[in-house]
Amino acid sequence: MEKEQFEGYKYIEGGVCAAAGFTANGLNCGINPVKEKNDLGMVYSETLCNTAAVYTTNKVKGAPITVTQRHLEASQNTSKAVVVNSKNANTCNENGEQIAEDVSRLAAEVLGIKAQEVIVASTGVIGEKMSIEPFEQYMKELASGLSVEGHIEAANAIMTTDTVRKEVAVEFEAAGKICHLGGMAKGSGMINPNMATTLNFITTDIAISSEMLQKALSDVVKITYNCLTIDGDTSTNDMVSVMANGMAGNSEIVAEDESYEKLKKALYIVMLNMTKMLAADGEGASKFLECTCSQAPDLDTAVKVAKSVVGSSLVKCAMFGEDANCGRILCAIGYTDADFDIKKVDLELASSAGSVKMYKDGMSIAFSEEEAAKVLAENEIYININLNQGASQAKAWGCDLTYDYVKINGDYRS
Amino acid sequence: MEKEQFEGYKYIEGGVCAAAGFTANGLNCGINPVKEKNDLGMVYSETLCNTAAVYTTNKVKGAPITVTQRHLEASQNTSKAVVVNSKNANTCNENGEQIAEDVSRLAAEVLGIKAQEVIVASTGVIGEKMSIEPFEQYMKELASGLSVEGHIEAANAIMTTDTVRKEVAVEFEAAGKICHLGGMAKGSGMINPNMATTLNFITTDIAISSEMLQKALSDVVKITYNCLTIDGDTSTNDMVSVMANGMAGNSEIVAEDESYEKLKKALYIVMLNMTKMLAADGEGASKFLECTCSQAPDLDTAVKVAKSVVGSSLVKCAMFGEDANCGRILCAIGYTDADFDIKKVDLELASSAGSVKMYKDGMSIAFSEEEAAKVLAENEIYININLNQGASQAKAWGCDLTYDYVKINGDYRS
Repeated sequence: MEKEQFEGYKYIEGGVCAAAGFTANGLNCGINPVKEKNDLGMVYSETLCNTAAVYTTNKVKGAPITVTQRHLEASQNTSKAVVVNSKNANTCNENGEQIAEDVSRLAAEVLGIKAQEVIVASTGVIGEKMSIEPFEQYMKELASGLSVEGHIEAANAIMTTDTVRKEVAVEFEAAGKICHLGGMAKGSGMINPNMATTLNFITTDIAISSEMLQKALSDVVKITYNCLTIDGDTSTNDMVSVMANGMAGNSEIVAEDESYEKLKKALYIVMLNMTKMLAADGEGASKFLECTCSQAPDLDTAVKVAKSVVGSSLVKCAMFGEDANCGRILCAIGYTDADFDIKKVDLELASSAGSVKMYKDGMSIAFSEEEAAKVLAENEIYININLNQGASQAKAWGCDLTYDYVKINGDYRS
Repeated sequence: MEKEQFEGYKYIEGGVCAAAGFTANGLNCGINPVKEKNDLGMVYSETLCNTAAVYTTNKVKGAPITVTQRHLEASQNTSKAVVVNSKNANTCNENGEQIAEDVSRLAAEVLGIKAQEVIVASTGVIGEKMSIEPFEQYMKELASGLSVEGHIEAANAIMTTDTVRKEVAVEFEAAGKICHLGGMAKGSGMINPNMATTLNFITTDIAISSEMLQKALSDVVKITYNCLTIDGDTSTNDMVSVMANGMAGNSEIVAEDESYEKLKKALYIVMLNMTKMLAADGEGASKFLECTCSQAPDLDTAVKVAKSVVGSSLVKCAMFGEDANCGRILCAIGYTDADFDIKKVDLELASSAGSVKMYKDGMSIAFSEEEAAKVLAENEIYININLNQGASQAKAWGCDLTYDYVKINGDYRS
């Protein structure tokens, strides 16, 4: 997938280590029996970071979510490190919080920092017993291997059913200083973010207060991760954290000034690209879906309509089958819980092979099946909905529903 | 699936013709090119029926929905016949309402009744042009073939991706009179009823006012059809209608008396069984799922939790794979939009092969994988959730998510 370009922002390599002062590492500590697959990752900042985070809204919360919230509260929203494992979600375990605290303590000891400066996270199977032993055995090796190149090993460590590593970073200028913001994400199934999503760790060297960083993150998450759905299942362990260590040397952002807008845009670009990467790598996906709802009466309606369409099992199956069954798209628009006039809706399907208008004023119109088949044969499909009753626009992202999704999830634990 | 028995109610044959005074028929009129598959059905009552109906809440409404609502309003909620076709939903067509009116007029002419006494319905592909010709050509043959045995042909006519015919009828006594209530249903995919579901036609010979009939229907639909989900997609053409012709000879029910309660229970029994049949025959389903949520703080919470679990794609895949991945069930309970304490939740999986406790107080407990595998190898799986914080209980129904669901819906139109 080609990245959308934004003036004043340059895509760079480096992921979670793109910003000055951050190092990372990843390795296999034995939670995952496949020795070639990393299952433990670490990110470290040489100076203290102002920190923002959003978490899953699921009532079932992974123990690391509870522990991280406690740490950030105790440290007044500052942090120096992330420790994260895959293969076991450390959720619904009786000793889960103790394990998450012990992992934080072990990391703090080897790094010479406070336990409350550690963000801890887990992803994997829910309700499986977890042992502290692998962490005890490998934490020192993990920390001693921290490097600027380590972002790749760290990004590998958080992957579960992901088929590609997900990293994005940008360089931009704010208040005369060169700044960097980058991150890594994991996620493929159990994805229907609600105020957070999957696991996402973002770092930046811009100087910004925790409060303003939280504001930017909370705003951007609404129009990026929260507009993504793979299967309608909101995970128990979702978390996005952003660590800002201030090493770019700008004077700290404490208000919604020009530098704040620049940081917010950088965050948007990185999170937008992460969101698209998560959609394209949805479990079993063969096609990436982007639905744009334009001319909506308000943003909330636009978001709801676009999410309803990419979330519909029937639409997802039709896209997999390359079947221009657009009545299903109208159906999904129609059951959206929002107030608008369905009789004004226009619909078009598009891809790099062209575009075909399918509905006008809520009614099907004649179209060439041949043209439609050409459009749907591509791997990136754009569903363009015009409500023709306002000025708001939103996008939502997802993927098709395939045999492989069923296969992957019919036997996830083994 | 074995039917649950209720004291005072006897299951009988006859479907939509089980009640006195009703006849039916079905045939192929050419909308469906498969000549062996009926695509046009009719139900007729020799006397005028007080009538109640509920419809889809989708903003996109099939033209027959609009026309039927108009008819029942004009006739003050009375009717004498149902005409229904499959293979074309007559929805999002420019001439849709005209076609539905013309179909009603044709039926009224051959039956010698008023057009406003006709309930008209369609199911099939959305946004396909529809012609009046097949109806003109076959309406007379359809009506002349009406018979008490015709319920089978009629039930066949409304099937789309259904693999089994769905009919249920009961005999019961009210106010000293023998009464009957029976019906037919269709539905397999695009099923997530919201105040209505799929196509369901119910007939009864009990005497009851339209107002009281509507009250009973609206109450019962909440705890039966509205607790069913196959794929989360609320159809554009959902409708349940109940016609009561009064031929049982009881004095008309006009208040919530003993006879009303008996009729309401008959309606519940028929709609409960229909709901289970729809779930078991969900598109591509290999397993029937029933989730019971008990000891909930209120009925609304119980319904939401149970529906959330049977609606989760990940739970549905795990059930298909016979994988006791109960963390996914906890996850689906956790993202339910309702207020309760997740830390009190117990969970058990059951089937005719036994039962296995999986979670206690929101935490996973040790269980025998062997026992769990035995339970999940059955075709009817019961997910029993105890919230341990109240006295309300509800059930929801669904099915597993299989390769065949994807296959069926990857190319539905052809």
